[in-house]
Amino acid sequence: MTIEASTTGGAAPRRIRLGMVGGGQGAFIGAVHRIAARLDDCYELVAGALSSQPQRAAASAAELHIAPDRAYADFHAMARAEAARADGIDVVAIVTPNHLHVPIATAFLDAGIHVICDKPVSTTLADALTLVEKVRSTGLLFALTHNYSGYPMVRQAREMVAAGELGEIRLVHAEYVQDWLTTDLAATGQKQALWRGDPAQSGAGGALGDIGTHAEHLGRFISGLELAAVSADIQSFVTGRRLDDNAHVMLRYANGARGLLWASQVAPGNENALRVRVYGTKAGLDFRQEQPNQLWLTPLGQAPRLITRGGSGAGSSAAAGHATRIPAGHPEGYLEGFAQLYRDLAEQIHARWEQRTPDPLACSVPTVVDGALGMKFIAAVIESSRAEGRWVSARL
Amino acid sequence: MTIEASTTGGAAPRRIRLGMVGGGQGAFIGAVHRIAARLDDCYELVAGALSSQPQRAAASAAELHIAPDRAYADFHAMARAEAARADGIDVVAIVTPNHLHVPIATAFLDAGIHVICDKPVSTTLADALTLVEKVRSTGLLFALTHNYSGYPMVRQAREMVAAGELGEIRLVHAEYVQDWLTTDLAATGQKQALWRGDPAQSGAGGALGDIGTHAEHLGRFISGLELAAVSADIQSFVTGRRLDDNAHVMLRYANGARGLLWASQVAPGNENALRVRVYGTKAGLDFRQEQPNQLWLTPLGQAPRLITRGGSGAGSSAAAGHATRIPAGHPEGYLEGFAQLYRDLAEQIHARWEQRTPDPLACSVPTVVDGALGMKFIAAVIESSRAEGRWVSARL
Amino acid sequence: MTIEASTTGGAAPRRIRLGMVGGGQGAFIGAVHRIAARLDDCYELVAGALSSQPQRAAASAAELHIAPDRAYADFHAMARAEAARADGIDVVAIVTPNHLHVPIATAFLDAGIHVICDKPVSTTLADALTLVEKVRSTGLLFALTHNYSGYPMVRQAREMVAAGELGEIRLVHAEYVQDWLTTDLAATGQKQALWRGDPAQSGAGGALGDIGTHAEHLGRFISGLELAAVSADIQSFVTGRRLDDNAHVMLRYANGARGLLWASQVAPGNENALRVRVYGTKAGLDFRQEQPNQLWLTPLGQAPRLITRGGSGAGSSAAAGHATRIPAGHPEGYLEGFAQLYRDLAEQIHARWEQRTPDPLACSVPTVVDGALGMKFIAAVIESSRAEGRWVSARL
Amino acid sequence: MTIEASTTGGAAPRRIRLGMVGGGQGAFIGAVHRIAARLDDCYELVAGALSSQPQRAAASAAELHIAPDRAYADFHAMARAEAARADGIDVVAIVTPNHLHVPIATAFLDAGIHVICDKPVSTTLADALTLVEKVRSTGLLFALTHNYSGYPMVRQAREMVAAGELGEIRLVHAEYVQDWLTTDLAATGQKQALWRGDPAQSGAGGALGDIGTHAEHLGRFISGLELAAVSADIQSFVTGRRLDDNAHVMLRYANGARGLLWASQVAPGNENALRVRVYGTKAGLDFRQEQPNQLWLTPLGQAPRLITRGGSGAGSSAAAGHATRIPAGHPEGYLEGFAQLYRDLAEQIHARWEQRTPDPLACSVPTVVDGALGMKFIAAVIESSRAEGRWVSARL
Repeated sequence: MTIEASTTGGAAPRRIRLGMVGGGQGAFIGAVHRIAARLDDCYELVAGALSSQPQRAAASAAELHIAPDRAYADFHAMARAEAARADGIDVVAIVTPNHLHVPIATAFLDAGIHVICDKPVSTTLADALTLVEKVRSTGLLFALTHNYSGYPMVRQAREMVAAGELGEIRLVHAEYVQDWLTTDLAATGQKQALWRGDPAQSGAGGALGDIGTHAEHLGRFISGLELAAVSADIQSFVTGRRLDDNAHVMLRYANGARGLLWASQVAPGNENALRVRVYGTKAGLDFRQEQPNQLWLTPLGQAPRLITRGGSGAGSSAAAGHATRIPAGHPEGYLEGFAQLYRDLAEQIHARWEQRTPDPLACSVPTVVDGALGMKFIAAVIESSRAEGRWVSARL
Repeated sequence: MTIEASTTGGAAPRRIRLGMVGGGQGAFIGAVHRIAARLDDCYELVAGALSSQPQRAAASAAELHIAPDRAYADFHAMARAEAARADGIDVVAIVTPNHLHVPIATAFLDAGIHVICDKPVSTTLADALTLVEKVRSTGLLFALTHNYSGYPMVRQAREMVAAGELGEIRLVHAEYVQDWLTTDLAATGQKQALWRGDPAQSGAGGALGDIGTHAEHLGRFISGLELAAVSADIQSFVTGRRLDDNAHVMLRYANGARGLLWASQVAPGNENALRVRVYGTKAGLDFRQEQPNQLWLTPLGQAPRLITRGGSGAGSSAAAGHATRIPAGHPEGYLEGFAQLYRDLAEQIHARWEQRTPDPLACSVPTVVDGALGMKFIAAVIESSRAEGRWVSARL
Repeated sequence: MTIEASTTGGAAPRRIRLGMVGGGQGAFIGAVHRIAARLDDCYELVAGALSSQPQRAAASAAELHIAPDRAYADFHAMARAEAARADGIDVVAIVTPNHLHVPIATAFLDAGIHVICDKPVSTTLADALTLVEKVRSTGLLFALTHNYSGYPMVRQAREMVAAGELGEIRLVHAEYVQDWLTTDLAATGQKQALWRGDPAQSGAGGALGDIGTHAEHLGRFISGLELAAVSADIQSFVTGRRLDDNAHVMLRYANGARGLLWASQVAPGNENALRVRVYGTKAGLDFRQEQPNQLWLTPLGQAPRLITRGGSGAGSSAAAGHATRIPAGHPEGYLEGFAQLYRDLAEQIHARWEQRTPDPLACSVPTVVDGALGMKFIAAVIESSRAEGRWVSARL
Repeated sequence: MTIEASTTGGAAPRRIRLGMVGGGQGAFIGAVHRIAARLDDCYELVAGALSSQPQRAAASAAELHIAPDRAYADFHAMARAEAARADGIDVVAIVTPNHLHVPIATAFLDAGIHVICDKPVSTTLADALTLVEKVRSTGLLFALTHNYSGYPMVRQAREMVAAGELGEIRLVHAEYVQDWLTTDLAATGQKQALWRGDPAQSGAGGALGDIGTHAEHLGRFISGLELAAVSADIQSFVTGRRLDDNAHVMLRYANGARGLLWASQVAPGNENALRVRVYGTKAGLDFRQEQPNQLWLTPLGQAPRLITRGGSGAGSSAAAGHATRIPAGHPEGYLEGFAQLYRDLAEQIHARWEQRTPDPLACSVPTVVDGALGMKFIAAVIESSRAEGRWVSARL
């Protein structure tokens, strides 16, 4: 159990200097990123282009203890200025609507600055592939915040599959179900509903892009399998909605495993009901993100076991222990899982500074390639649905 | 709450005379039918062709207090003899392997005897359709034991949907998951695995026929919707297995609702994990047969409510009350649900005897048409899977 | 797994002839006893004094297929007449209000007839002790329907404790919580509330007698420990109520284990929330009667295990298997648990007839001594509460 | 929903300067306090006496970015020096073993510095009462980290009781159950077990002081009732253990309500199973800290409702909203609950600086008086247990 990233002896390494684009007053996910960055005390937020409106950018920065000379209204200016400073930022967090992810990431990568980007990585597959090349060519780090992969029990699930405890994997069932778009929320002017429902800002996927890619990634993250093809049926149940609000997808993995994926934002009574079940020849696993401190392990022919974060049944999991801050029975949640990606990226950055190999346990942070796979997934699902269920490749 | 079918005053109506075909020593489902018939004291088991082996038939009958002269080894002989007796059976319960359902049912229908038949109704769609016609032409009763429809909370769910409490239905998610065929059980000589894995005895569906049709029926029973088409991907994960052991199905209903259905017998840790979720524009419902005394109701914008059988939140449900024997907090289970179909059929038979309209609450017992729809579902799923996911009609 | 008591080969033994006292039209628990007796087909109900009102007794009997000449209005007459018949009843089930249990039981014991009696056994400890002596002197069987002890998972829990799987037992926590007396239900004329609230019919205990003795018995049944002393605080929260509606009790067992017991009928939201937790030096067990197909086993230093009735994790339990009718995942409930006591008593009766030792697995049916211990428990709790928590012996 | 304490417009108020005593390398709760202080960005840790060993104190400070001149090995020196600095700490967090709480708190209060103190507040009731007077006389703020009172659902529960939604409260059931002391852990040299098992460092209570006071406080916090008297039975099950490892307590509240409290560290399978149930004449509430995003509300005569943090059913709760950072379905946990006390104290401090009334929602942070009540509870329980269950006053 690691309470803080910095308690391993010796003076604390300097905090990583973090900048942020987006996330000004009233934004949601920006604040989550800031708490995540703060939680383990590995970062300090020192610069930001928190809004493209200068006044709001300045006010937002002031609220966050960012010095006025590092409060920008333009991300290009920020990238240039920060790259030029001796104490410039080491990494930028991008928390804008989706359509701005690629241009912003490109600007900072070009300036030699690592990137943390909210998902989905882009609005088109083509953009995502271009960005993959950009990241490769610069050699910089690019973390995509598929945050659910930071939960200790998810890390343990992945570790157990990799260790063969489930046998050969046959089935992957992933679902992410919400209800907040059951009615025509955009018609009420709700900001989130508006931009997420606008293809120009969101991309081609509605529920697919917003939550479907989380389910797709988590299934892949835990199972370790390559998704080969999809057959899908997507819908927009609410009249006038331009993007899907429900998606049913059948999955085929490269190893012959099969699966189902369901993403919905119109199922009353569901908040963020992300669940992944994986079944192999020897055992099954069941993870629900709303109960992230628990993981069911169901070995064939034995009683189901409820593994808890830090608990007796999880004792030997290096991967879960790595992602744990407090003892069993004291629940960790969404913010801690999110923070884990920040902490792991910090380790990767420190390893570069110190010219050493990073801790392997810190190396599962989703990357730009995961982002491109997510965009491919969205494109393939839409194509299959339009082709009345024809199987479409999900490979890059 | 009705404790016994016969406590409504006046002398008890005479018990319905029941015969049974199949269900001899060592059989499973026959014993379940017998308990179901006995539970509410509406039937007496007086005749049987419990086995096609004469010695075993006689021994089985003796164990069950059946008089030797009414212990048959041949169902044709039984149908003839019982039809000829003044005290002959009123109804026969068919609990043999699937391929015998239609010939046996036909023999008893031809003899003027009502039929209770285990599911699936037949091994081919054509046979099922022929049987539909036979039932129609005789005017006799034919109950198909999709037993999960007898649970009080299932009855209540159906009633709530019909009353519009969920609004317009958009989504139906049904799954029935087991693990008992994760390994090659047939290779060990296990009897159930052998005949269920043999197309000649089971029909074209493996998991599909055994449990998939339960899920299909229950989704339809609760939602009240007509299934229009399916797109499917089925598998046999275990080498050498001739029938499917896993089925993924996308659903389209006649009203535009969509759904997913998953049937599996290779998911370790699942016993009889039958679950149906239905979502409409106003609320959702979630039923799990392993917790049959509970029903989640999730009205949009309100806290989820846990309705319990007989409990405060279920107070006004006529349909649930009709199917309930004991008060809230004292769980009823599988046998009681099964018995409900027997009790409801008894009411239908008594109503015929008394030349009156049966209690409408006793009229949801699945029929031969449900059986035919199930066979159509199996055929459509297999056709779609072979056609790589093409949508195939599920209508008769 | 035993589907029916009679499927072990050979002709079925004759059904045990059952009589019933109490349980006429409108009664609740009588109907439960009848279903329990019927479920495994070991009994036939042939006589009854179902009501002390002759007309109602006759009408109730007619509804239950009891011959008119065996429908009595007086239990003394019934005991005499049945004892005199060649085909007289073998056993009587007593399902009247509490204050009649002892006189009725005495009459039938004196007539040489076995007794099944609802709990609590009497209204005073003195009466219970007298009855213990009566049973001993006659050598007849006396079963007390502490029905929760018939659940397979309760049987398994008891077996696991006895086998030492929990180590030395340190803690027993039992609670039985309801809400049906939260308001002054008796004031509305509700029949159950009226007689249960009347000391003359119910005895000195309210919630204590009605449900507290169930919790006391179940804790003792599972743990196998002797209750040594209690310290208690009981209340009647509703104005005008003459008996307790809530009881808090601290427990000391003979081996040094300690416990808590809570019985309440004024806790809104609780139906029949009977739960027993037992903790030893090596593991714990947690059973909830509203989920009777499950049992949590929590070995120290290992992941908690969810044992299910008939499931993989319960495979080797002879005691649970003995009490099981249908496979895992298909829930059994209250009626099946109740029926288990009837089935086990049938085995005891058959063994007597056949002059053999009964199956040890059928020998845990609660007896008149358990009834006396329950009455002692009630008396000790009341005495302790009056003495402001002084510890009072619970030993006979 | 408040994402960050500082997003209400205008420049951020300066961060509160925090010092810490205790919590050096290898300590647990100190790290929790630091994360809690950091989470909402209201504090900066600038000074510490993290260990009484100078070398370790310096090394610990270096790891935490504390300047060398503000790394102390002696808390008296720290109090003096910080009080003398223009940029001295505003508040000190005390995270040492229990016996040091009072002297350290006194030193900082005498220096005019606010105090955050881990619980229990002292090792004796007398010390606690002296400290109450000290806090009163200085007029400074004193926050006791009964952290579970920071959970949004606990805040909501308290608010609902206060609003009369449960009617008059009759029953309070609190339990806090662990298993980590099931064996003689101290004998293995485990540090936590050693000091917590030593009366000189821990005080008179074992499980009572460590977790029992949390249960006592939470029951009182939610119910709003004054605890009047206790009757108890405490044990040390493990040979050689000097303090209790299990406590059973019956409770009487000033308004006539009754309750039970169970604290145990020897119940295998329990991690931090803190649960509080409160029942009134109109409804009940059930909160479990291991599922802190959920609260069951059980109105009499209605279906139980599962209220979730931020969810539809919790929409109108000002108290829960105040303590919430992220939307429903994304779980918050222990650290967020802990952080809530820090954030609320920050509001109280800012209000003092700004000479205004603090937000009433931020005013439920436990105080030194709660600490004294906890010590009185411990003393009363021990006295009652020694007096064989005699009721002992729990009032100060």
